[in-house]
Amino acid sequence: MRVIDLKKPVAITAWSCVGGKKEKEGPLAAGFDMLSSDDYFGQQSWEKAETAMQKYSLRSLIEKRKLNARDIDIALGGDLCNQITSTGFAYRDYMIPFGGMYGACSTMSLTMATAACLVSGGVVNNAVVGASSHFCTAERQFRTPLDYGGKRTPTAQWTVTGAANVFLEREGKGPFITKVCFGRIVDLGITDANNMGAAMAPAAVATLTEYFIHSGKRPREYDAVYTGDLGLVGSRLLKQMMEKEGFPLENHIDCGMVIFDNEKQNVPAGASGCGCSGCVLAADILPRMAAGHLKKILFMATGALLSTTTTMQKESIPSVAHLVEIVADKEDL
Amino acid sequence: MRVIDLKKPVAITAWSCVGGKKEKEGPLAAGFDMLSSDDYFGQQSWEKAETAMQKYSLRSLIEKRKLNARDIDIALGGDLCNQITSTGFAYRDYMIPFGGMYGACSTMSLTMATAACLVSGGVVNNAVVGASSHFCTAERQFRTPLDYGGKRTPTAQWTVTGAANVFLEREGKGPFITKVCFGRIVDLGITDANNMGAAMAPAAVATLTEYFIHSGKRPREYDAVYTGDLGLVGSRLLKQMMEKEGFPLENHIDCGMVIFDNEKQNVPAGASGCGCSGCVLAADILPRMAAGHLKKILFMATGALLSTTTTMQKESIPSVAHLVEIVADKEDL
Repeated sequence: MRVIDLKKPVAITAWSCVGGKKEKEGPLAAGFDMLSSDDYFGQQSWEKAETAMQKYSLRSLIEKRKLNARDIDIALGGDLCNQITSTGFAYRDYMIPFGGMYGACSTMSLTMATAACLVSGGVVNNAVVGASSHFCTAERQFRTPLDYGGKRTPTAQWTVTGAANVFLEREGKGPFITKVCFGRIVDLGITDANNMGAAMAPAAVATLTEYFIHSGKRPREYDAVYTGDLGLVGSRLLKQMMEKEGFPLENHIDCGMVIFDNEKQNVPAGASGCGCSGCVLAADILPRMAAGHLKKILFMATGALLSTTTTMQKESIPSVAHLVEIVADKEDL
Repeated sequence: MRVIDLKKPVAITAWSCVGGKKEKEGPLAAGFDMLSSDDYFGQQSWEKAETAMQKYSLRSLIEKRKLNARDIDIALGGDLCNQITSTGFAYRDYMIPFGGMYGACSTMSLTMATAACLVSGGVVNNAVVGASSHFCTAERQFRTPLDYGGKRTPTAQWTVTGAANVFLEREGKGPFITKVCFGRIVDLGITDANNMGAAMAPAAVATLTEYFIHSGKRPREYDAVYTGDLGLVGSRLLKQMMEKEGFPLENHIDCGMVIFDNEKQNVPAGASGCGCSGCVLAADILPRMAAGHLKKILFMATGALLSTTTTMQKESIPSVAHLVEIVADKEDL
């Protein structure tokens, strides 16, 4: 694991996100481009709904930045569905070169980190990246059919129904991606598929620790260190483990703990899903950076790389965390 | 879709591949680093076998190039399993920053193209890329359990049991990746999941046509234009369609038509799978380039981006094709 210091910072020139009913009732609702009370988004299946969300988000991004789809050099994206079909099906309607990525709930920072490297290295002028998740597609794929009415464990997080996109360019007024750090896969033997936070926390610690050691930065230099969706249990673990590593996190915010009002919306363990970190980034973090309320942050989504097959084969849960440093102004570099 | 002309060509400094029983009986057997008559590779499930294959291939690559895993800046890889677990589980035993990619059977050229851009742009010094597939994991995931004994249609291709890796570096004696072209998603409405070649041919045509138009190159400038796994039906379609586009392919070779002796090995429609193009590249194409028998080629793997869920929802099959230009000597640039 190495810290990649982007010689040319990459401008984030537009962002967008779309959410469902529960997100509409949550505290970040005002930051969404579109919110639907119908989680089907007018479609006939949840999978088609997730594709529709991605398309609404992408269209919103394209309109905001006044783009022609033909001017987009590359798109990198992914989701949680088998064979990332929500994303693949969204892009079949666009003439945009597309590379699929899979990092489970780390997808937003994985695609951002990869695209930032492509743009900074000068091989493309711009890139759109994105991620989505849908509560209903995830529940029936990874857990049980919704109609089954299975009881949720106290550590189970609620998958966000949301899609987010970010547009990266060589030139622009920012915020800027300045450093990236691709994580390695960490597996400490956690096997409880209803406790993803605990499985992902060690991967988050591995990436953060390497980042701080190799960049020479310290947590307190950042206005906030955002993680993706560790939730209540994983966030506590992260803080304990980072304290032991000698990098106590006083300014840690988990996207999974802010997208819903956990108590009122009855999600005690918090939220999860690729759409969780993506939507918090686009609905809350980037707007606050653009408004000058946040100067410098770390954004690190985490992913649990399991499948139902590996769970049935009694495998433990390998996880990964990818990190990007984002600064509001070039003066803060 | 644009052609990315890599300002700094990227050296392919090592390659490796591992295959199973049918690959061992095929015409390219001599080019593999390891072949197992036991498709379980000593493991207790086919999924674990696919992970084992990836690890054997990766270990072989690391040994050949005399690498320390810590010196590898990034790994990009993927496979066909849900949540690309064969790949994720392989990398949990390595301290290598890992980014997962999903492009179905286009994975080998998708990861090569992406990593080549990262290395050429100077953000990393090197990258390992790879892809794998396993006949048994693919059959039971995408079609029917093997024990069911379902009859194969005449157009059904045989998924290769194989894993391949390639190591890319900023410096080295080559062969070199000189240009890449990321494909866009194409869906002409094919719905037959047993005829992937027909679904993927239009994506291959889209990428090749754009490549020839925007690079100014012509098919005859290449010793060979390799496609991934169009098979018998898809290859015929590709040639017909490229003729209509004004770029007749006289030197087309489909990896899916050369890895097995189709007649003797009873696979009339040819082979498929991410491992197919990967293994043909590592077992046959790159060795021949290194030996000077091939000077300049195009390598374009194609992927069908369906899932069993989309098939059950009566969706058509979107496809994609990613291309890399490879030259043996820098003088041929």
